[in-house]
Amino acid sequence: MIRWIAFDADDTLWENEIYYQSAQAALVDVLGKYCNGVMVAQALLDTETRNIASFGYGIKSFGLSMIETAIQLSNGRISAGDIQSILEKIKEMTGTAPQVISAVPETLSILAKNYQLLVITKGDLLDQERKLQSSGLSSFFTGFEVVNGKDETTYRRILERYQIPLDQFLMAGNSLRSDVLPVAAIGAKAVLVQHELTWEHEKIVNLNLVNHPYYEIATIDLLPQLVDQINQELK
Amino acid sequence: MIRWIAFDADDTLWENEIYYQSAQAALVDVLGKYCNGVMVAQALLDTETRNIASFGYGIKSFGLSMIETAIQLSNGRISAGDIQSILEKIKEMTGTAPQVISAVPETLSILAKNYQLLVITKGDLLDQERKLQSSGLSSFFTGFEVVNGKDETTYRRILERYQIPLDQFLMAGNSLRSDVLPVAAIGAKAVLVQHELTWEHEKIVNLNLVNHPYYEIATIDLLPQLVDQINQELK
Repeated sequence: MIRWIAFDADDTLWENEIYYQSAQAALVDVLGKYCNGVMVAQALLDTETRNIASFGYGIKSFGLSMIETAIQLSNGRISAGDIQSILEKIKEMTGTAPQVISAVPETLSILAKNYQLLVITKGDLLDQERKLQSSGLSSFFTGFEVVNGKDETTYRRILERYQIPLDQFLMAGNSLRSDVLPVAAIGAKAVLVQHELTWEHEKIVNLNLVNHPYYEIATIDLLPQLVDQINQELK
Repeated sequence: MIRWIAFDADDTLWENEIYYQSAQAALVDVLGKYCNGVMVAQALLDTETRNIASFGYGIKSFGLSMIETAIQLSNGRISAGDIQSILEKIKEMTGTAPQVISAVPETLSILAKNYQLLVITKGDLLDQERKLQSSGLSSFFTGFEVVNGKDETTYRRILERYQIPLDQFLMAGNSLRSDVLPVAAIGAKAVLVQHELTWEHEKIVNLNLVNHPYYEIATIDLLPQLVDQINQELK
């Protein structure tokens, strides 16, 4: 029987990628005299991916990668003023309360009656806690875990920390790579919740994990019914 | 009776400020044609302090503040190449294994026999976990908590999380502001472990908290004896 339901945060509980794409559009403007938008998108993704080992995920890592990409694509010709405008954009993002995704509060309210709810998110500790507070959703959750990455070891460690048996755990999120496949691979239940905007990085999956079954729903309000159905089958 | 001992990490378990000061010296070199070292030190501290609300603590926040300071002090004349060199310095820091402070492993080894040990540190999640792993000290600790700031609420929340009674908790660290005064203020034991290099920011204390008593030792190897003594007095 499922007793614990964990949620990804960005683009599962609240919008996130839309703000990153808006910052990327501002970078395209800044770099307009050096290259086009496709080149910016590709170079930024490459820089972010390369920098994950040094900087990890989240808003500050994204800011440092934006600056590095701007220097690279301008061949060192970008002005200090333009770099300052990138810094300002990042600060603006850290001051933006993200929009909570449609039906999330109602869904959490239903689920919280019968399940212990967790958030498991990558990214920046300060930024994610700030977004949780501004979302108004924090009272639904027993725990809020910000982690450096989401692989099988991460999920096993969190289950151990909360003393959750594998067969009582379900994870829901919009990333096949981070929220679904590693959870399915350790033998727990995983639900992909579709979102039209998902960061390209999250679409690159570990091919060793793709043979584990998982569930998929179009919108989060379908989750309570799905969990009921799973629990009926497990009875 | 003390049963739990928590440690700060940077400049308590391993060197940290020395690497930040080395990066600051590199920034002074880069800005040599615009201003002197004293001006760089003051402007950088001002920028870091102002940016804590947006970026929090840690290596990436420091990197973004270094870039912002360089733009400001050069009046926007700094070159993209010089900003790239700041990015490289930050990456170099994320790849440096910090030196463990003298007598720390022996002291932890003694204390771990009779007490549960924790780390409570501010800063960057990825960078602090990386440093813990590279230090070789991780096996001594029951828990490793990376937090956004260290005030009374932070400590109360951690004590609650681990179900530690106030009178069983002692915190040791090099920062009066973060490790000592808020812990003393909630009524637990706090020990200032001296370190010759302490970040200027950590020297600015909350004056409402300064009347609470705390202990002070010159080096960490004096901690086991102090804890024994405290426990004798509490008997």
